[in-house]
Amino acid sequence: MRADIELMPQDIPDRKGGGKVFVVIDVLRATTTIIEALSNGCTDVIPVVTVDEAFDLAKRVPIEGTLIGGERGGLKVKGFDLGNSPREYTRDVVSGKRVILTTTNGTKALRSIAACENVLVAGFTNAHAVVQRCLALKADPVMVPAGGERKFSLEDVVCGGMMMDLLEREGVALTDAARAACILYRTFAHDLLEMARNSEHGRELIRVGLEDDLALCVQTNVSSSVPVFRDGSIRVD
Amino acid sequence: MRADIELMPQDIPDRKGGGKVFVVIDVLRATTTIIEALSNGCTDVIPVVTVDEAFDLAKRVPIEGTLIGGERGGLKVKGFDLGNSPREYTRDVVSGKRVILTTTNGTKALRSIAACENVLVAGFTNAHAVVQRCLALKADPVMVPAGGERKFSLEDVVCGGMMMDLLEREGVALTDAARAACILYRTFAHDLLEMARNSEHGRELIRVGLEDDLALCVQTNVSSSVPVFRDGSIRVD
Repeated sequence: MRADIELMPQDIPDRKGGGKVFVVIDVLRATTTIIEALSNGCTDVIPVVTVDEAFDLAKRVPIEGTLIGGERGGLKVKGFDLGNSPREYTRDVVSGKRVILTTTNGTKALRSIAACENVLVAGFTNAHAVVQRCLALKADPVMVPAGGERKFSLEDVVCGGMMMDLLEREGVALTDAARAACILYRTFAHDLLEMARNSEHGRELIRVGLEDDLALCVQTNVSSSVPVFRDGSIRVD
Repeated sequence: MRADIELMPQDIPDRKGGGKVFVVIDVLRATTTIIEALSNGCTDVIPVVTVDEAFDLAKRVPIEGTLIGGERGGLKVKGFDLGNSPREYTRDVVSGKRVILTTTNGTKALRSIAACENVLVAGFTNAHAVVQRCLALKADPVMVPAGGERKFSLEDVVCGGMMMDLLEREGVALTDAARAACILYRTFAHDLLEMARNSEHGRELIRVGLEDDLALCVQTNVSSSVPVFRDGSIRVD
């Protein structure tokens, strides 16, 4: 096995997934929110790219109790049930419900990779469980930090680096990019919250009043859920 | 000022250069070779993308003493005067001569950025001089590691990180990507040769018998030449 990471978002229309498992990471906050929702009994999350798509889908597939969540500019969209804060996706709110989710970067990254066979959803909260799944699948892991438009995302690469650190301990070979991510993780491992607070994305969330999300998003190994994205829907097995 | 780095090669057809200075890095070996050639009295280097283009240009513009250099698979192309090893570009060989150069990644990266106003050529050998030039230009530096096809290049990012380290000491702000490059540089600074030897590209060069190039390519601060790419040609002012 050999693990790789795309250190910047790549515009790859023809991404081939043969023999690989793609791991989508958007720590702040889409993938952390998805993990939290599914850990709390949400039946499935449908990632969509635009706000209109979210409203349309909710209308076309009127399943009782479907919730629409997501953000633009970090904040809840008018008319949505939920924003993109994992704190909102409690058991009381999401248990037994489907969530349609649209976020600025994370759901786009997921949709761009929808055609691949093996796609997992990761954050710091479930990184250990995702690594175990990658090892069980015996496919080469490719970490895909969501980032923004052609934009490096420090917290996502550090999260990918944490998984590289765990994979390397299990004897998995790392590409140069994966080694670089691993070095970045080890640099920040002693204080992931401080890393998140000082990251470009973290500073933006603090600016719009969402600082409390950061501590939740950098908790490690608190969820054993491994969300799988298949046929347009994200579920835990 | 704010310094940034493209941690992976970006396919940006409409790259805008307004208020920016782009710094192309291909440590192993294109930019190191260009710096060496110009430091040794070569009049100018014309980067071209294909081998045919190199032969055609040499025929169309038959300037006495024009040399054709470059590599495919790391090795000198049949019919070329020189390969892509900086060791070949001695004063005896290149002084007063024009060089037409084509390499797998470096000259492609240069040509992709040809339309921008400020484009400099950097390697470990001239990194200090390039940083001084960036400061004098008062434009935001964007480091462009050449890498390969959508491929992360550790040695180029570490070289970019060395320049970020120097820029930060001069009070220049760094993006998250630039900070990451800086961390990678500091991790490997104590033994750049070992870093190059263990990099994917370094291992490939060792495999084809070009190990001796590595030590030359990771020398720091040995050239004060700052090659400038303008109107299709690379020169020192």
